[in-house]
Amino acid sequence: MSGGTPYVLIDGTKMERNLLKMADIAWENGVALRPHVKTHKIPGIAREQLEAGAAGITVAKVSEAEVMADGGIEDIFIAYPLVTEAKIRQVIRLGERVRLVVGVDSLEGARRLSAVAEGRMLEVRLEVDTGLRRTGVLYDEAVGLAGEIEGMDNLDLTGIYTYRGAVLGGSRTLELEKAGLEEGQLMVSLAAQMREQGIGVDDVSVGSTPTAEYVAKVDGVTEIRPGTYVFYDRMQARLGTCSLDECAAVVVCMVVSRPAPDLAVIDGGSKTFATDVAPGAEPLNLEGYGHIVGYPDAVLERLTEEHGMLSVDEDCDLEVGDTLQIIPNHICSTVNLHDEVYFAGEDGGVEEMRVAARGKVR
Amino acid sequence: MSGGTPYVLIDGTKMERNLLKMADIAWENGVALRPHVKTHKIPGIAREQLEAGAAGITVAKVSEAEVMADGGIEDIFIAYPLVTEAKIRQVIRLGERVRLVVGVDSLEGARRLSAVAEGRMLEVRLEVDTGLRRTGVLYDEAVGLAGEIEGMDNLDLTGIYTYRGAVLGGSRTLELEKAGLEEGQLMVSLAAQMREQGIGVDDVSVGSTPTAEYVAKVDGVTEIRPGTYVFYDRMQARLGTCSLDECAAVVVCMVVSRPAPDLAVIDGGSKTFATDVAPGAEPLNLEGYGHIVGYPDAVLERLTEEHGMLSVDEDCDLEVGDTLQIIPNHICSTVNLHDEVYFAGEDGGVEEMRVAARGKVR
Repeated sequence: MSGGTPYVLIDGTKMERNLLKMADIAWENGVALRPHVKTHKIPGIAREQLEAGAAGITVAKVSEAEVMADGGIEDIFIAYPLVTEAKIRQVIRLGERVRLVVGVDSLEGARRLSAVAEGRMLEVRLEVDTGLRRTGVLYDEAVGLAGEIEGMDNLDLTGIYTYRGAVLGGSRTLELEKAGLEEGQLMVSLAAQMREQGIGVDDVSVGSTPTAEYVAKVDGVTEIRPGTYVFYDRMQARLGTCSLDECAAVVVCMVVSRPAPDLAVIDGGSKTFATDVAPGAEPLNLEGYGHIVGYPDAVLERLTEEHGMLSVDEDCDLEVGDTLQIIPNHICSTVNLHDEVYFAGEDGGVEEMRVAARGKVR
Repeated sequence: MSGGTPYVLIDGTKMERNLLKMADIAWENGVALRPHVKTHKIPGIAREQLEAGAAGITVAKVSEAEVMADGGIEDIFIAYPLVTEAKIRQVIRLGERVRLVVGVDSLEGARRLSAVAEGRMLEVRLEVDTGLRRTGVLYDEAVGLAGEIEGMDNLDLTGIYTYRGAVLGGSRTLELEKAGLEEGQLMVSLAAQMREQGIGVDDVSVGSTPTAEYVAKVDGVTEIRPGTYVFYDRMQARLGTCSLDECAAVVVCMVVSRPAPDLAVIDGGSKTFATDVAPGAEPLNLEGYGHIVGYPDAVLERLTEEHGMLSVDEDCDLEVGDTLQIIPNHICSTVNLHDEVYFAGEDGGVEEMRVAARGKVR
């Protein structure tokens, strides 16, 4: 922790427990676990996920896949539509040394993959929109598009995938079991329709940290892709996916100013805590930007870039120089703000880990 | 731009115009300009600000000051209360090779500075809260604290400073002239009270991009510290500080999916665009996360980490593979997400610039 506060601290014991818990869910339901590594962005932690039972990993960018391949990961799914010749070539080059599967969600995208691959076989999965309205072919158009991709040169369509998270009927929800089961059933039904048309899709890959344990139970689902479970965060605790105590990552900050009895200012602001899961947003309705360990009533009410404004009781004992551990609302985007994290192992030692795939926006 | 989209693109011609405009405001009003470099975090651009007339720069962290000193900047104000021995020592070491001024806002903080400095003289400025409720001693307690600091060993209190931005009466406002004049007058009056007590404060440093031109007119203000003006952004345009056309920085993104007539998905999400200036927040009430150049009716409605969901008219001509230039809501925190930016010079060439002081949270 040379360099002082603020920094991200990982509790290795809690992390290990989280890894095993999700591996058990996958094992008991007979599905593969392919975690999205966006949460930690660290090859060493990806390797621990594999050791705990994961079959491979998921990333969003080719550049992230490269970092992970350099870190010894040999089975990578890029769950993102690649549409430029440069990026498709990058994938093909990387595919010469590790197993790569690539997402596709449009006819135009599939044509580009097919054209650039010329002579090589690219393994692809079709992304389907099951309600998040993000990437993914519309559900009703998925069978038709799968048929077209099936007929294309250089592409081997081996599966379908979706990401919906805590969404039900187009809105975010706290009814995770219902959301997860519906998500899984939608995908299994789609795969059946494709197979009836003679389209040979094997993999039905579904799910997210909040829905994983329900999705995994749906007969016909073959793979789950949770990400956040490695550390969990305040958003997951509010969703009911974990307890606050299971959260394995905190941001350690220091009180740098105590200008008024009801205000403590810490040295972490929006450069330190992600702001993408905003206070008050439905259905989570979180108060503030993080949970202050030991000060459950303190609210991290406002952030500017370098300051966090903590609203506290007038008799709060916090003083300039005190440190606080804070569970952020969203750990994935918070880790992305940090060049390194500190990993407290079960042996009591603390190791600095570089967030090697941080900031890979391209 | 090797590596493709998304990336930050700077228009060097517009930037130069912005630098000169603010330098003129400072010159005409006889105040010093000490820009906060948090907006660009690049020593080369800081040097351009100095060449355009700035007297020195402002940073928030010692680590940023080190990067700037390494980049040839010799006059740096760290506008942040430093409270740990390690960071104070770091400042003292750095002060051996450049002129450094350090912020202080509490008796406890001043005592720590004084104790660690032992035998060396540290130049400090007292931070005053003029309504933002962030760091800064309460206005009514400022004279008393200044008196105590004045009597401390190893500290040379040379000025007072504040940051309020577009705040009036405790709330964010669009009445910038009123806010700026009030902010300046509050500080000038405080300096006068201190001088009456025999406290020798010279520098009265005030202001922000939106209030700079008004604050600069207040007799007795000696320095302005705007940051965002180097590039401007959508927030500043909404505040009325600039036009959208003066914004010198855009994020270039690509349409990667066009799943429905009213939805285009781009390859920039919350890892690419800062989310700290949220849509709908008062008083700006911005729609979406950025202004889409050429598509003023398109709304960047939702972001997940790697996806931006652009709500478009059903007859919108955007296709997979099209690129878009987007003016982000808040450029400072957006630049902080990028390892490099691309600078289009007046000669037509495009240069990659490393954001050397990016991610310096400590």
